[in-house]
Amino acid sequence: MENFIQIAKNAKEASLKIASVSTELKNKALLNIAQKIENSALEIFEANRQDLLDAEKLVASGEITKSTFNRLKLDENKMRDMVQGIRDIAELEDPVNKVLLKRELDKNLVLQKVSCPIGVLGIIFEARPDVISQISSLAIKSANAVILKGGKESINTNIKILSVINSALDEVEGFPKNVIQQVFTRDDVAEMLKCDKYINLIIPRGGNKLVKYIKENTKIPVLGHADGICHIYVDESADLDMAIKVVTDAKTQYPSACNSVETLLINENFAGKDKLLAALQLSEIQLIEKPDSWSFEYGDKILAFKTVKNVDEAINHINTYGSGHTDSIITKDNANAEKFMNEVDSAGVYFNASTRFADGFRYGFGAEVGISTNKTHARGPVGLEGLTIYKYKLCGQGHIVKDYACGDKVFHHIDIPI
Amino acid sequence: MENFIQIAKNAKEASLKIASVSTELKNKALLNIAQKIENSALEIFEANRQDLLDAEKLVASGEITKSTFNRLKLDENKMRDMVQGIRDIAELEDPVNKVLLKRELDKNLVLQKVSCPIGVLGIIFEARPDVISQISSLAIKSANAVILKGGKESINTNIKILSVINSALDEVEGFPKNVIQQVFTRDDVAEMLKCDKYINLIIPRGGNKLVKYIKENTKIPVLGHADGICHIYVDESADLDMAIKVVTDAKTQYPSACNSVETLLINENFAGKDKLLAALQLSEIQLIEKPDSWSFEYGDKILAFKTVKNVDEAINHINTYGSGHTDSIITKDNANAEKFMNEVDSAGVYFNASTRFADGFRYGFGAEVGISTNKTHARGPVGLEGLTIYKYKLCGQGHIVKDYACGDKVFHHIDIPI
Repeated sequence: MENFIQIAKNAKEASLKIASVSTELKNKALLNIAQKIENSALEIFEANRQDLLDAEKLVASGEITKSTFNRLKLDENKMRDMVQGIRDIAELEDPVNKVLLKRELDKNLVLQKVSCPIGVLGIIFEARPDVISQISSLAIKSANAVILKGGKESINTNIKILSVINSALDEVEGFPKNVIQQVFTRDDVAEMLKCDKYINLIIPRGGNKLVKYIKENTKIPVLGHADGICHIYVDESADLDMAIKVVTDAKTQYPSACNSVETLLINENFAGKDKLLAALQLSEIQLIEKPDSWSFEYGDKILAFKTVKNVDEAINHINTYGSGHTDSIITKDNANAEKFMNEVDSAGVYFNASTRFADGFRYGFGAEVGISTNKTHARGPVGLEGLTIYKYKLCGQGHIVKDYACGDKVFHHIDIPI
Repeated sequence: MENFIQIAKNAKEASLKIASVSTELKNKALLNIAQKIENSALEIFEANRQDLLDAEKLVASGEITKSTFNRLKLDENKMRDMVQGIRDIAELEDPVNKVLLKRELDKNLVLQKVSCPIGVLGIIFEARPDVISQISSLAIKSANAVILKGGKESINTNIKILSVINSALDEVEGFPKNVIQQVFTRDDVAEMLKCDKYINLIIPRGGNKLVKYIKENTKIPVLGHADGICHIYVDESADLDMAIKVVTDAKTQYPSACNSVETLLINENFAGKDKLLAALQLSEIQLIEKPDSWSFEYGDKILAFKTVKNVDEAINHINTYGSGHTDSIITKDNANAEKFMNEVDSAGVYFNASTRFADGFRYGFGAEVGISTNKTHARGPVGLEGLTIYKYKLCGQGHIVKDYACGDKVFHHIDIPI
């Protein structure tokens, strides 16, 4: 445990240093990482091959699934995307040191609200080694320090990629040490979750069991979502063809994604109901009329469905059984659409669109930290901005509060255009 | 416990309803509350008199302090401020339903980021009955439901004020029930802190023991601060008169405030050191050179002080022993001021100004929810905006993700001016 605390202290120290690193130096660091990863591709593949050999045995013995094995595997395509992802983040606007508000409180007393990094991020992820470079790049760009804990299945790949990243950072003069660190054991995770003194935000990247475990075992803010119980409500006036098209996309385009639809609610007066259900079955979607639970994430081509009286019943169902992720209404009735979007308490409320659009890249954020169902800090797809907070800078000329308290001076609060 | 869960469920239901209440209706509700409190002043004073009679005995037996007794006492001035405070909140801009981003992702596919309430707030406060009307008004304006738990010393006053508030709300047609509820026991607090299913944010209003207890005993996000260990660093080039004026204000203008200075750091080359210390002593400030702890909040006219080599040592001291609240540098050196403001990791970083300016009203927010030393969601003095989050509304015409995934369509991401 001593060890983890030292790592956390180092991260805190690094976070204070990287907070003042210039945009240019951060981008230089990112481009150097991309270059070094490209140059070290063969060594990284070799480390990955070690992990895959071990993982094959685990697949054979049933300890890990074939899909975990596939996520573990780095190939030329994933490597290319990884490197391009880092270069894309270098291109993005710097999210820190942005002036969000500038206000003259009184003559020569100027307040500025300025974006700044959060501090130290704890990242806990499962068997996808490409997460390391992505999250490290996001952290560098937003000037946060990170402590990474990857899945044990990808340990060789993780160690190799991190050593490439850190040797790239070492080459960048003036870039602080210990911005990106890694830990390996379950005990480290337990320590991380307790370490609210040094860690400011936990970001889990993995299945809902992992996320639930983390949310239930820490007082540190957690950015993410456990469940993605997304709904589509087909209103009385919905266009049948549109309903078929949107529901099919939301269920089949990538069934295991968190923004795939799990429950279809159909207005009892919707004339196209039978045709809609028949069309979905034609697309090999298995329909379940009486599921054991209305809060289950199938992650497969399975769709629960229910007939509801009206938009109010649909809204009530979603607010009761949903996970606050993304829910859509298909309708020609603008008033019902507006009611649905106002009253459904979810991060994404859609009108005549597939729930699959809930994604940082599709929203145009350029990068995605994850999707949050939190009600504070950041909600929905989270871009770089979600890794920042702000501080207030106040510049005076010896101003004191007494002058205002006794009435000698009065605040005038004039906003200055930014 | 049954009882608390029912109250929490009612609050959740109320929160979903108040989310769509119009600005006009919310303001009507606020003005009616103000009017009713004004009309019921005598009854409220009578309830308060009961509490004061009980409290007098507790003061005599030493169970509560004289200052707690004073905070408990409502007088004509406090009553007037209370009523004016509610009317002021009615005048403020509605913080919800503000469009924060509008972006065309593709033709006829428009994304909007819209501010909305957080949901259910749990408010735990000590013996200041005026908190009830203030926090209830902030909740109504931001369309959140609240569960209030006040100090037992002010129980009669709290019950009376809440009954006036709720009878005022009952008169407003269309205003949902159960937006403002109250609980009374320690068991209720324990239940509240566990109730992350229904409660989205806890706001403690009270001393640092209360805040620390709450932060340590809940996974629900807590908005607030435990300690206010504020610093002033007097740099080598500081103007002596300005240093005297600012430090005196920051220590004596209201010594028990959280934004009062607790530690003075003086550059070893600052020529005016002796004169500064002498002047502070003249203002009856007790100076402590070797305090037991550098992280102690005196809340009194007591000031720890230390000589430091340079601005770096001052920054390091503040980041090590401070509470991330508000810290100020007194200097003529702009480079040092900039360094200080960039590197000190606090909600407020000041240059030639008293730490006492850290306050929502002084910042021009019109209302203050509290001061936060959190690194996520809201930091520093928090206005109404801190009681909101946002949702993403996406309006399409049957848009599906498959078209973009296969390359038939391409996002164009055009921001639309708001």
